[in-house]
Amino acid sequence: MNQKVVTLGEVLMRLTVPNQKRLFQTVNFDVNFGGSEANVGISLAHMGLKNSHITALPHHDLGERVVRFLNMNNVGNEGIVRKDGRLGIYYLECGAMQRPSRIVYDRFDTTFSYLKEDEIDWDAVFEDANWFHYSGITPAISQSVADVTLRALKEAKKRGVKTSGDINYRRNLWQYGKQPLDVMPGLVELTDYVVGGRVDLENCLGIYDDDWSRNCELVLEKYPNIKAFSKSIRDSHSASRNDLTVVMYKDGKLYTSKKYEMNNIVDRIGGGDAFMAGLIYGLLNLNEQQTVEYAVAASVLKHSTIGDVNLSSKEEIMHLVDGDNVGRLLR
Amino acid sequence: MNQKVVTLGEVLMRLTVPNQKRLFQTVNFDVNFGGSEANVGISLAHMGLKNSHITALPHHDLGERVVRFLNMNNVGNEGIVRKDGRLGIYYLECGAMQRPSRIVYDRFDTTFSYLKEDEIDWDAVFEDANWFHYSGITPAISQSVADVTLRALKEAKKRGVKTSGDINYRRNLWQYGKQPLDVMPGLVELTDYVVGGRVDLENCLGIYDDDWSRNCELVLEKYPNIKAFSKSIRDSHSASRNDLTVVMYKDGKLYTSKKYEMNNIVDRIGGGDAFMAGLIYGLLNLNEQQTVEYAVAASVLKHSTIGDVNLSSKEEIMHLVDGDNVGRLLR
Amino acid sequence: MNQKVVTLGEVLMRLTVPNQKRLFQTVNFDVNFGGSEANVGISLAHMGLKNSHITALPHHDLGERVVRFLNMNNVGNEGIVRKDGRLGIYYLECGAMQRPSRIVYDRFDTTFSYLKEDEIDWDAVFEDANWFHYSGITPAISQSVADVTLRALKEAKKRGVKTSGDINYRRNLWQYGKQPLDVMPGLVELTDYVVGGRVDLENCLGIYDDDWSRNCELVLEKYPNIKAFSKSIRDSHSASRNDLTVVMYKDGKLYTSKKYEMNNIVDRIGGGDAFMAGLIYGLLNLNEQQTVEYAVAASVLKHSTIGDVNLSSKEEIMHLVDGDNVGRLLR
Amino acid sequence: MNQKVVTLGEVLMRLTVPNQKRLFQTVNFDVNFGGSEANVGISLAHMGLKNSHITALPHHDLGERVVRFLNMNNVGNEGIVRKDGRLGIYYLECGAMQRPSRIVYDRFDTTFSYLKEDEIDWDAVFEDANWFHYSGITPAISQSVADVTLRALKEAKKRGVKTSGDINYRRNLWQYGKQPLDVMPGLVELTDYVVGGRVDLENCLGIYDDDWSRNCELVLEKYPNIKAFSKSIRDSHSASRNDLTVVMYKDGKLYTSKKYEMNNIVDRIGGGDAFMAGLIYGLLNLNEQQTVEYAVAASVLKHSTIGDVNLSSKEEIMHLVDGDNVGRLLR
Amino acid sequence: MNQKVVTLGEVLMRLTVPNQKRLFQTVNFDVNFGGSEANVGISLAHMGLKNSHITALPHHDLGERVVRFLNMNNVGNEGIVRKDGRLGIYYLECGAMQRPSRIVYDRFDTTFSYLKEDEIDWDAVFEDANWFHYSGITPAISQSVADVTLRALKEAKKRGVKTSGDINYRRNLWQYGKQPLDVMPGLVELTDYVVGGRVDLENCLGIYDDDWSRNCELVLEKYPNIKAFSKSIRDSHSASRNDLTVVMYKDGKLYTSKKYEMNNIVDRIGGGDAFMAGLIYGLLNLNEQQTVEYAVAASVLKHSTIGDVNLSSKEEIMHLVDGDNVGRLLR
Amino acid sequence: MNQKVVTLGEVLMRLTVPNQKRLFQTVNFDVNFGGSEANVGISLAHMGLKNSHITALPHHDLGERVVRFLNMNNVGNEGIVRKDGRLGIYYLECGAMQRPSRIVYDRFDTTFSYLKEDEIDWDAVFEDANWFHYSGITPAISQSVADVTLRALKEAKKRGVKTSGDINYRRNLWQYGKQPLDVMPGLVELTDYVVGGRVDLENCLGIYDDDWSRNCELVLEKYPNIKAFSKSIRDSHSASRNDLTVVMYKDGKLYTSKKYEMNNIVDRIGGGDAFMAGLIYGLLNLNEQQTVEYAVAASVLKHSTIGDVNLSSKEEIMHLVDGDNVGRLLR
Repeated sequence: MNQKVVTLGEVLMRLTVPNQKRLFQTVNFDVNFGGSEANVGISLAHMGLKNSHITALPHHDLGERVVRFLNMNNVGNEGIVRKDGRLGIYYLECGAMQRPSRIVYDRFDTTFSYLKEDEIDWDAVFEDANWFHYSGITPAISQSVADVTLRALKEAKKRGVKTSGDINYRRNLWQYGKQPLDVMPGLVELTDYVVGGRVDLENCLGIYDDDWSRNCELVLEKYPNIKAFSKSIRDSHSASRNDLTVVMYKDGKLYTSKKYEMNNIVDRIGGGDAFMAGLIYGLLNLNEQQTVEYAVAASVLKHSTIGDVNLSSKEEIMHLVDGDNVGRLLR
Repeated sequence: MNQKVVTLGEVLMRLTVPNQKRLFQTVNFDVNFGGSEANVGISLAHMGLKNSHITALPHHDLGERVVRFLNMNNVGNEGIVRKDGRLGIYYLECGAMQRPSRIVYDRFDTTFSYLKEDEIDWDAVFEDANWFHYSGITPAISQSVADVTLRALKEAKKRGVKTSGDINYRRNLWQYGKQPLDVMPGLVELTDYVVGGRVDLENCLGIYDDDWSRNCELVLEKYPNIKAFSKSIRDSHSASRNDLTVVMYKDGKLYTSKKYEMNNIVDRIGGGDAFMAGLIYGLLNLNEQQTVEYAVAASVLKHSTIGDVNLSSKEEIMHLVDGDNVGRLLR
Repeated sequence: MNQKVVTLGEVLMRLTVPNQKRLFQTVNFDVNFGGSEANVGISLAHMGLKNSHITALPHHDLGERVVRFLNMNNVGNEGIVRKDGRLGIYYLECGAMQRPSRIVYDRFDTTFSYLKEDEIDWDAVFEDANWFHYSGITPAISQSVADVTLRALKEAKKRGVKTSGDINYRRNLWQYGKQPLDVMPGLVELTDYVVGGRVDLENCLGIYDDDWSRNCELVLEKYPNIKAFSKSIRDSHSASRNDLTVVMYKDGKLYTSKKYEMNNIVDRIGGGDAFMAGLIYGLLNLNEQQTVEYAVAASVLKHSTIGDVNLSSKEEIMHLVDGDNVGRLLR
Repeated sequence: MNQKVVTLGEVLMRLTVPNQKRLFQTVNFDVNFGGSEANVGISLAHMGLKNSHITALPHHDLGERVVRFLNMNNVGNEGIVRKDGRLGIYYLECGAMQRPSRIVYDRFDTTFSYLKEDEIDWDAVFEDANWFHYSGITPAISQSVADVTLRALKEAKKRGVKTSGDINYRRNLWQYGKQPLDVMPGLVELTDYVVGGRVDLENCLGIYDDDWSRNCELVLEKYPNIKAFSKSIRDSHSASRNDLTVVMYKDGKLYTSKKYEMNNIVDRIGGGDAFMAGLIYGLLNLNEQQTVEYAVAASVLKHSTIGDVNLSSKEEIMHLVDGDNVGRLLR
Repeated sequence: MNQKVVTLGEVLMRLTVPNQKRLFQTVNFDVNFGGSEANVGISLAHMGLKNSHITALPHHDLGERVVRFLNMNNVGNEGIVRKDGRLGIYYLECGAMQRPSRIVYDRFDTTFSYLKEDEIDWDAVFEDANWFHYSGITPAISQSVADVTLRALKEAKKRGVKTSGDINYRRNLWQYGKQPLDVMPGLVELTDYVVGGRVDLENCLGIYDDDWSRNCELVLEKYPNIKAFSKSIRDSHSASRNDLTVVMYKDGKLYTSKKYEMNNIVDRIGGGDAFMAGLIYGLLNLNEQQTVEYAVAASVLKHSTIGDVNLSSKEEIMHLVDGDNVGRLLR
Repeated sequence: MNQKVVTLGEVLMRLTVPNQKRLFQTVNFDVNFGGSEANVGISLAHMGLKNSHITALPHHDLGERVVRFLNMNNVGNEGIVRKDGRLGIYYLECGAMQRPSRIVYDRFDTTFSYLKEDEIDWDAVFEDANWFHYSGITPAISQSVADVTLRALKEAKKRGVKTSGDINYRRNLWQYGKQPLDVMPGLVELTDYVVGGRVDLENCLGIYDDDWSRNCELVLEKYPNIKAFSKSIRDSHSASRNDLTVVMYKDGKLYTSKKYEMNNIVDRIGGGDAFMAGLIYGLLNLNEQQTVEYAVAASVLKHSTIGDVNLSSKEEIMHLVDGDNVGRLLR
């Protein structure tokens, strides 16, 4: 396979409270790394694609730790900028049963928030690229990285690279003076494939309808550049049991995946990013129905894996899509 | 909130076999602390009440360890007596699936069993108190602490403090020469709110009827001082799956909570004490139906938490009672 | 109880990836030991029988580690031969949810594969023995241990010792030039009790029928020495949820156990060996229906236990067979 | 003992790389808490004094974690202010042999840096207080906490409470526009007991002389309010071996402690704060020579203990000062 | 080698505070097992001798845990009595540098203290035995086990088995009404080889002289049955650095070993028992000077090993006695 | 810096017994990776050079684990061949004090041993290369990789790339029919810089003299192509304390480094490879005396680091060479 995906976004250190303790009890943390867009890129790398991730990291040894994490996962270094500053952090308390998982963020004023357009070697990053992906998180962080996002979309378009955006809305970000409606429409205009739910559409694009298909139509009327629209649907029975489906609206048709019952969830973080990666893989390599099946299976497998990133190969995902003998020991 | 609960009881060290090993295999232990009544007091402290716990602990550094545990959980020190002797222990082997959890006790002849009435500063302990709680475990340990229990109830009554008792019957205790029927009725006569199941009533009060409501009526006929009677009902499908309901009989009416399906149980120990604490909180702050709903939700959340104690705040418990989006990630 | 079982087989070191990580991520391994036949023997030792296990282990300290493991589990040393060479290994990546567990073997050219008939003190091993058990794995490893297996069966028969064989077929073994059909029939002719599924029968005995009862009849026609035929039936819903039943064909009748729903599976490895051990125990001590119930309960309890071996006592297994209050805390 | 010490300062979370790994390799962190002045206060609490610590902590559960840490160590809550914001962090890579330990700070813009004078209940904090201690770190953080420091000194003086300051100079702080020479002299004028080395004196007070005694005299000429001047002298042979002495200049005399050879250092962080706590304890309870001996022994014992805080009791410190059978097992 | 040593004594569970924490901080314990005489027996088993250990253990699974520990270390089961009761415990806080290790005992009223003479199958235990060893700890525990000790010595003498006693005096034991001088002389009269220091001799035998050789002479005058007298001499520089020598007085001559500088001590517990085991091995197999060299080297190696027991083989001990390339990597 | 080093050699998985346990006790392993030549390459990568490592790894996920290890450490992939087979292993038991560390190898018949000359893309590997390094271990493994070594040297020479060889002699390898004297001289003839001690020279080149300088002269007479000759000198006081010096013979002069006392050794494995890497760095960038000082300091720092590889940067090594304030905390 000779496909390369460019992703843009912050990589945070995740400090997870181990052994099902509460955050206010903890005596140690497990260390993982993630960020919505990097999760997508690394998932695609595990499916066999190339990935170049644009981000900024501190000079100090914790920044080096992240570089090693990215290297280890086969992410290309071309888009990694090293600067002074701090690494963003989030603390994860793992839920169980009827007790939800909880996140405490400490991600303001990070090195990434100061990343500038001209610090990136756009030619190196986009060399041989087929796809560019961003999310609604980056433009919410600072004007500087909102500008980087717009620039990246333009660089992609300039080179004929396909683009996708996960326009997830994060209320607690957006503190630099701009509102989503000031920024997101300009980005979506340059986006071929959009992922988002009703709340995201309402806040980022100002479009709302109770019916999701109608919602899609309204978006597509306003943004005729969009080629497909997708989201995952999660029913949360408890922190340990969710059900998951993926739907995609494309060329006037709604494609719906099989619904998976997810019991004994291991790690729910990054489930949406795994779905996003599955979607991109499918759009590049599969037909529409296969795409939603692949995307939902990718997300399900993520829930069985510690860390923000789906580590499954495309063979493992296809094995679940094919669905015989689910969970049977492989010798 | 300006409520204070006084509790009385032994605090044991719990040595838990980690990593799902059997006790006869173990190479290490996780350390927790608990005891039925302290569990109730600490749970209430996590709900925002004050708690003063009456107990006795050894002088040595393991006793100090328990004091630090209590301090950390916001328990007042007024009722803690330091004496020579040993700390009681229980070993916990964690069950899974169809294999039950198992406890080995090593709790005879402990410092607590020698605690004497006049070692306690009753005025300091009961200053500003609204409630006193005890269980049927303490009077089963020794004459000395049975006397302390009776004295505490009298001190509470003298000051107009409400009283509750969880009259759980533990066959393996009661080795100092008295039987439950010699001791428990005298305590129940001074108790406003009683928790117990059929087996407990039969052994502690000599009252038995197959029908639980009728059981309650018989108890209330004999002990007209009792204002309400409650218990939790647990269906055990496996060590990993229990279902839970709470019922309360008050003023001639039976209040029944929602029934929760508890899958993927993390730690079942202290589930009854969490229910007891929820009940006390409800009786102090909520109406009857709210009380049983709060009590059962508190107990459910305990099952998701490592250790003997429910660490949930009242907001978290109410969040489950309200019941939308159970288990959904909180950012 | 004064029963003694002789088992023959390789003991491998199992290196398990802890904390639900993938093998390609691991920074440490948990160490267990197991092998199909040793698992059977040790399970029986935990049920109160004596066990003498025939195997070969390296001289170095890792071989010593295995000896200590066997000693600790009450396995007699008479059949343990120490030689030069390497210890076989298997790597276990633990699945969860819809992601299967995976095994990577590194078990060629081990000390065990060079074990020779005349290195074993057959009299010491079979002293006071009631039963001999082998599996289809050993004769697949090398000519030398295939010869040992045949010799052991003859030694058993010579002494009037009952014999059982779990004729599981492992495609990846059988690399020394012989095929199962060259070897297994000669062993089955000396076997009183046989365990195997359709795939095993087809490959090891060349007998196949879609209907399992018919399959049994065909086998019994060809091998009239066989007294009973059994297998477990596993429905795999996911790596975390399997359902399990045991069936046994004996004297023209089919005995079927209760079907267990196994949720929250802790460790699936050795489930078949626990069933095998339960079957042997039952055939020695129980009637037919009790035997299948005991065998399936033994296997279910194995799934709740870390490691290859069922550590349950016969009382614990009987407690599950009796089935009241499954999973209820034992104080 | 009825002595109470008030301390003021930030409490940071320390994330320690375990198992002697490098920071850029780490897969987990051990969690400790500390800060120069809190370390002093908690050390004194372990010696039997009361301690009330003035600080600000975030509302979220990580702030709660710190409160539990303080409670557990017997620190009074009167001076703890809860506000929005983030918790300061430092990362510790543990050195060994000739490789030094390394710290990466992430402590800008924390909740503490926004603490304001009027958020503190000065009467509650200083009730029954004998001593107030601060360090040169707090005034380096922000104007707001520099103001709090000055105010605290005035509140102390107003009440006749003795004061001490550890005027350690931290070049990387001091980024809010003021220089040490703008701020520190005003604080030192209100300080009875000062700790600092040549570099600290030069940068904070503008006084320098190669000879330390002469340095002291120069300081005392300019600040006649100072009653004693002290410092510890550390010879660093390697990360695992330091030698330590304490000197104190008081009433024109120089007191010098025994010199300790510290091999196999366990945790060097907080060694200076343990000395500071020992000094305060000595100045309150011992004569001059005893004071330097007690202070150096306290610091030595800190080096044997994980975490920022000296956990030794005064009996343990005195045991080392007395010096027989050093390190001999205590049964 | 065909030598068998019988030992008698309690086996305690040791709960060690890991990660250099203080006991009052601990959140987990490492589990080891030991007891002075069992340590001697197991050390000898690692040197290739047979060992049969006389002790009593509870019926419950923690007792089973100890049996597995003994089995694993090749201790024969003939002398293990299972009874009701509790397992003795000791808590170990590990010192470092100038901070000593500390032990908290919880060993009263244990199963072992109720062991009775007639519960032991003396013939089975002493079958093929060459040596019997006891210590001064057992007769200090209860009248019942003091009686067992005397009986064991008589059983040994009756069979011509050599006897040794480590008459270490433990002040905190001896609470059952007898004093050492009431009991120990009767035991020493039946003892061939005695180990003890000045304090032990004074308290157990009432003999004291400042000069140790003279001390030996006085003992030998009174107890002409004694064939040799030995002790180890430990200089404690810190918890991490001790120096060690062994001396033995035999046939009027004093044999002195090489003095070892022990830096970076890993675990000091059981150092004396390792010396004792080395002494017994030497007296059975080596000449006098070799014996003291072997005994001191065995003890030094114990200090490098976690747990109460010396795990070194006789080859490893001899390798140190020979002393070339100490500590050089063995491939 | 724009230097690139090519290395050739097997990468083994190292399974380390943690917590200072013996191999025969272990319940888990820490996982590291290493191999003499890869250690050299990765050390150089940490000093800022590029490294391309020639090796062969199995297809399965454990092979993938090694690839991730190499990626993470910035090793180029060009020389990594994936094939069927097994990964070589070595087990490490960590010594302490007078007890040596011990290694058990399980490295025969590995994937690497089947690596063939024509499986390597020599142009890609040597693109921009300045240096090629091999050791005497690879030619000892199999004819096939001995051939690869010779070919690599020829490829280097063809391109004007400098070459170095660490001719360490491993007696237990060399089992494929050739002896060192059959193979090594042909390699040394193509080597510019040679490292080896007296035993290595004797066995690999057949040259021996008691005096090392004379030894060097003899080698240089026979191999005039050699430009410099070096070795490290280690005095082993115990497993925890070694002293280290480096000497280099070049252009008729002997350069000797400072001698370091290494106390509290953390991990001795790879100390020689760290010296080798330091030597290569020095020969490329420093003068002769600086080179031996840099090489010895690099090796000393390795001893403070867990794992086979020196993780120090050139700044850290230079900091030790400069030698002020050794071990002082870096904030």
